[in-house]
Amino acid sequence: MKRLKVSILGASGYGGAELLRRLFQHPLVEVVGIGSRQYESQPLEACWPQFAGLSSLIFEDTATIIEKCDLLFSAAPHGSATSDVKAALQSGRKVVDLSADFRLRPDTYRYWYKEEMHYPELYPQAIYGLCELHRQEIYGANLISNPGCHTTTANLALAPLAAAGLLGDDIIVNSATGISGAGRSAKVNNLYSEVNENYVPYSLAGTHRHTGEIEETLGRVKAMGRQLKTHADFDPVMVSFNPYRAPMTRGILASCYTKSPDSNISEEKLLDLYQDFYSGEPLIHVSSSLPETKAVFGTDRCILSVRYDQRTGHIIALAATDNLGKGAAGQAVHNFNLMQGYEESLALIRQAVWP
Amino acid sequence: MKRLKVSILGASGYGGAELLRRLFQHPLVEVVGIGSRQYESQPLEACWPQFAGLSSLIFEDTATIIEKCDLLFSAAPHGSATSDVKAALQSGRKVVDLSADFRLRPDTYRYWYKEEMHYPELYPQAIYGLCELHRQEIYGANLISNPGCHTTTANLALAPLAAAGLLGDDIIVNSATGISGAGRSAKVNNLYSEVNENYVPYSLAGTHRHTGEIEETLGRVKAMGRQLKTHADFDPVMVSFNPYRAPMTRGILASCYTKSPDSNISEEKLLDLYQDFYSGEPLIHVSSSLPETKAVFGTDRCILSVRYDQRTGHIIALAATDNLGKGAAGQAVHNFNLMQGYEESLALIRQAVWP
Amino acid sequence: MKRLKVSILGASGYGGAELLRRLFQHPLVEVVGIGSRQYESQPLEACWPQFAGLSSLIFEDTATIIEKCDLLFSAAPHGSATSDVKAALQSGRKVVDLSADFRLRPDTYRYWYKEEMHYPELYPQAIYGLCELHRQEIYGANLISNPGCHTTTANLALAPLAAAGLLGDDIIVNSATGISGAGRSAKVNNLYSEVNENYVPYSLAGTHRHTGEIEETLGRVKAMGRQLKTHADFDPVMVSFNPYRAPMTRGILASCYTKSPDSNISEEKLLDLYQDFYSGEPLIHVSSSLPETKAVFGTDRCILSVRYDQRTGHIIALAATDNLGKGAAGQAVHNFNLMQGYEESLALIRQAVWP
Amino acid sequence: MKRLKVSILGASGYGGAELLRRLFQHPLVEVVGIGSRQYESQPLEACWPQFAGLSSLIFEDTATIIEKCDLLFSAAPHGSATSDVKAALQSGRKVVDLSADFRLRPDTYRYWYKEEMHYPELYPQAIYGLCELHRQEIYGANLISNPGCHTTTANLALAPLAAAGLLGDDIIVNSATGISGAGRSAKVNNLYSEVNENYVPYSLAGTHRHTGEIEETLGRVKAMGRQLKTHADFDPVMVSFNPYRAPMTRGILASCYTKSPDSNISEEKLLDLYQDFYSGEPLIHVSSSLPETKAVFGTDRCILSVRYDQRTGHIIALAATDNLGKGAAGQAVHNFNLMQGYEESLALIRQAVWP
Repeated sequence: MKRLKVSILGASGYGGAELLRRLFQHPLVEVVGIGSRQYESQPLEACWPQFAGLSSLIFEDTATIIEKCDLLFSAAPHGSATSDVKAALQSGRKVVDLSADFRLRPDTYRYWYKEEMHYPELYPQAIYGLCELHRQEIYGANLISNPGCHTTTANLALAPLAAAGLLGDDIIVNSATGISGAGRSAKVNNLYSEVNENYVPYSLAGTHRHTGEIEETLGRVKAMGRQLKTHADFDPVMVSFNPYRAPMTRGILASCYTKSPDSNISEEKLLDLYQDFYSGEPLIHVSSSLPETKAVFGTDRCILSVRYDQRTGHIIALAATDNLGKGAAGQAVHNFNLMQGYEESLALIRQAVWP
Repeated sequence: MKRLKVSILGASGYGGAELLRRLFQHPLVEVVGIGSRQYESQPLEACWPQFAGLSSLIFEDTATIIEKCDLLFSAAPHGSATSDVKAALQSGRKVVDLSADFRLRPDTYRYWYKEEMHYPELYPQAIYGLCELHRQEIYGANLISNPGCHTTTANLALAPLAAAGLLGDDIIVNSATGISGAGRSAKVNNLYSEVNENYVPYSLAGTHRHTGEIEETLGRVKAMGRQLKTHADFDPVMVSFNPYRAPMTRGILASCYTKSPDSNISEEKLLDLYQDFYSGEPLIHVSSSLPETKAVFGTDRCILSVRYDQRTGHIIALAATDNLGKGAAGQAVHNFNLMQGYEESLALIRQAVWP
Repeated sequence: MKRLKVSILGASGYGGAELLRRLFQHPLVEVVGIGSRQYESQPLEACWPQFAGLSSLIFEDTATIIEKCDLLFSAAPHGSATSDVKAALQSGRKVVDLSADFRLRPDTYRYWYKEEMHYPELYPQAIYGLCELHRQEIYGANLISNPGCHTTTANLALAPLAAAGLLGDDIIVNSATGISGAGRSAKVNNLYSEVNENYVPYSLAGTHRHTGEIEETLGRVKAMGRQLKTHADFDPVMVSFNPYRAPMTRGILASCYTKSPDSNISEEKLLDLYQDFYSGEPLIHVSSSLPETKAVFGTDRCILSVRYDQRTGHIIALAATDNLGKGAAGQAVHNFNLMQGYEESLALIRQAVWP
Repeated sequence: MKRLKVSILGASGYGGAELLRRLFQHPLVEVVGIGSRQYESQPLEACWPQFAGLSSLIFEDTATIIEKCDLLFSAAPHGSATSDVKAALQSGRKVVDLSADFRLRPDTYRYWYKEEMHYPELYPQAIYGLCELHRQEIYGANLISNPGCHTTTANLALAPLAAAGLLGDDIIVNSATGISGAGRSAKVNNLYSEVNENYVPYSLAGTHRHTGEIEETLGRVKAMGRQLKTHADFDPVMVSFNPYRAPMTRGILASCYTKSPDSNISEEKLLDLYQDFYSGEPLIHVSSSLPETKAVFGTDRCILSVRYDQRTGHIIALAATDNLGKGAAGQAVHNFNLMQGYEESLALIRQAVWP
């Protein structure tokens, strides 16, 4: 079978490296182009020593790598490659966009990003790529908007409750993430000397942009159940989303607290609900044990569990992902497989590196 | 001034090491005895290389070190030294007990520890040593029950709200801790290879023993305000307490979520409330910035802040401590200073090691 | 093609987990048995949460898993499974032994392990599995003795110099390793609280058992060049081997210092020598950049470089491996592939997880 | 006693923070000024959250803080504050300079720094502040050049051998350091995501600038013994210095390998030699156990030991320091105490934070 030619914009970021780790192993793909302003004309290993001796790719300019490819992965930061995405689409190429550019409805986008969506005319063709819930509309799509890392994790944790009408009025998401989510940019806050032995809250109390994504997806689930359509009608569900940085490179653990309107629940019933909801999903594991981030380190899986606090009536839904895997590059490749109609797990990683 | 003779039971644990780091610097104290079953007859440095060349203490048996001292710090694990504490008290010595043995009312103790309190006859003289809130009754006490680490942190975060009648019906505490809280015991779960790059929930949903301590203290604050009496009447306040292990040695960040019954609040008012409540406290700092654990690493301080999520109406109270400092040994020495009527900050540590 | 049935003894250790991560992906293998005294009768995920939902294997007793298999991987600690290895061999099964039981000549073994080799009668059939240097005799072998982690790393660094006659009289190996080399055993020294922010020398100055392995292999290279025979004659080369524990889970960096007898050398010539020596090796990468352990994290590769200190005349040979990959499980699977005559890179991992 | 007024240039760097942690506790010092280009006009806590609530200092411009003080600590990077140091000296103030500007003889400086010394006319009054070996000439000095971190550690390890004539022709220093030595500057290589799980060689084989400092000090010891004069005659001793970055914030472990010209040595004799050489030193501890960096974390101590490899004849001298303590700020305060004729341990830290 002929391999599909793909290029990666933003290949010098962590999301880019993780795309390469998967796409180099993909039996139906040939990576033909990698882009990075900073490393243009340099070999891949100048940026990523782990690929030394394994690839002869050279970073090239954006126009060149788009020209070469059938499909573009854009892992460049929010807002920086929107016009490239547009150009790729206009020249008939498909795009998987890992940025936030097309994740929200234009009005929600304006609220959270304090600016207008760059190309709102493209939004109607953008499919929100939370694979488990948008699978049907991803097949054949031209533009996938790959979800955020906190978002993916919280939504997978809360979706079964939303679908079953078990979300209470108050939904609190306490989401702890590794530092790689902040990217490979040189900021003092991200230095080892600042991060090690430090647990840090940030963008609390309704100020983090991922809030909008969580609210839209939960709204869709409430309206449509398990098979979502990006562009159907729905009302968002309000959530208090609160992110924290744990001193680690990878991993997100979302702890989602709500109080069920239905008092006739138990941990056992809740686990059954989750098992049913995600039955057959190749990248989801529902466990009666509490999920921990190391069990998904380096992978594209999400491990879920749920607890019920009988004393207070709270449901606690928990999800662990690798923010660069299921939370970024892994889901992007999953979306790619679904778009193309390939076996959907091709090149995805399920076995964590432990220890 | 003559130095008071103190001994330390459980000096081979992390709490013990932190007691020594403070008491060796205390101008009114002489450490005369250190106890540890495992290291008996060995020099201090066999257990703690950081004290090599700085002390000639030898670990001795319990009876000997009690005999030598005027006051005993007991840092032995829960339940393991209760009879030694009793013996020390009966021979006229004062005790600061870092274990959970006398932290709860006997009925609450039975509920959370699944056993009877060992010497309930001692409980009436035990003073709960949350220094900022029990200061008056600590002076002159014979037996201090030093609070737990999660407990101290959550209670300092929530007390101003409890006192001001701003706690809602639902109170969720999401408390992330470093691994040293698990002690120096050799367990697979605590190995570096298991902890690094791992964020782990444990004892969620009303199953962690610190829940009872939080509920009792908040109940006292609700009933008595800022000056608490351990043995006065009160009704506990129900809390959903949920602990997590972050991949770090030290530090606790408690995130406490509640929805105020009073809708006329703002972040500014809340910060004022916290500033007032802790005005003049030498070890508390209320900040408009978000607290992070590194800012209290190695110290006996607690840094607090509070946020208000206008969209959802949630108050988020945040507190950072070092679980071994303010959460254990530092508070024990603070209690000791208060008991003895010394200047209360003697030998306490306020400047964190950063980076 | 029919899959070969393999079993793994000691599957609850870190080496065992890494064998599973590779063998589950091996197209010609079926893992039929896993053994562990501690976890007998429990499912794999009770020990390894990362495999939850990915395997239905149950830990079984040693006799059962040997009975089921065509070939046995023994990842049990040194000395604990020697009789099981013997039994497996006697019943006609092949064995890849990851322990030190058959790594040394009986007299060298006695010197370093302070005891007699358990079954010296098996030693003549044991092939020392440093794949790059023993490839020819590994094909068709029945018993492979898989090299140690420090050993593999130091020997790959020094072999080209030994073969070229460039080793001086003094050879100093300074080898820094991650803590996972100490295994999954619960020891205080291996706790996160003890390891983080700690760099620790151990077994210095000719007291570490890996010294003997390094000396034997370098002796063989000096006598035989690039194609070694385990049981041919040779004189060991004396080395001062000095190991250190760095605060990380995985990775070894060996720094090997020697002063060439040949003064007509340069960094460029040395790099050429290394490139030639390892030309065509699928798991070796010789780089002009300095190797770092993260570039091989989770992999079965070794990255090498060499420096020449013109001022002092020292050659510094450097090698980075993952102690659990190329230093243990990865090399074991490489040996397995060679024994069986399979394509030698099957199921081996070359792309590191970065970050 | 009236407190001496001191100011700190470069107070926003890690060395600056550590100076503050000590000087705020110094009974004879008042910190009157702090300088930092980046934080000018901002309060101390904007830069260092750990001092929030503990100080009301504001960052000011260089001229102002020099004007205010009796003595200046300059913790600004190499070359950036040389003219400020000159101005402070010319206006009659004393200076402790933590940079490399005056650490080397002008010709050695030119060799290692590839430029001329900025103010060679000041060099004759600069005293090299390795406290244990230059104590006599530090008293009363106007300008102290505070040694480098790798340098201090290696020199303390090797000085006893140099003084006793036990250095061989070859001296190899393998020095592993925490990342904080690279400063608080935002570079990709220093990000948590790059540093964690990574052990990295850098500037090997005679290319690191600290080499010159080690060679000069060992030369002085060889010529003068235990009481050194910065400006006396001596011949440097050649050393192969090789630094590595371990994944930790703080700590240096120097491993120094040499082969004694005297064959009549033993570990016991060497330990005696070290004990004698450092007898009475308040910040040095010679141990028969192997030193580890955690035992000096956060302190101004150096723990030393020595091993003898009987098989190969190598002496291995080992020293552990905290690069920011004894390796920088702690030694600077030690120098300050000596200059002023104060009790030399004032405000120095001897008890490590463990765990």
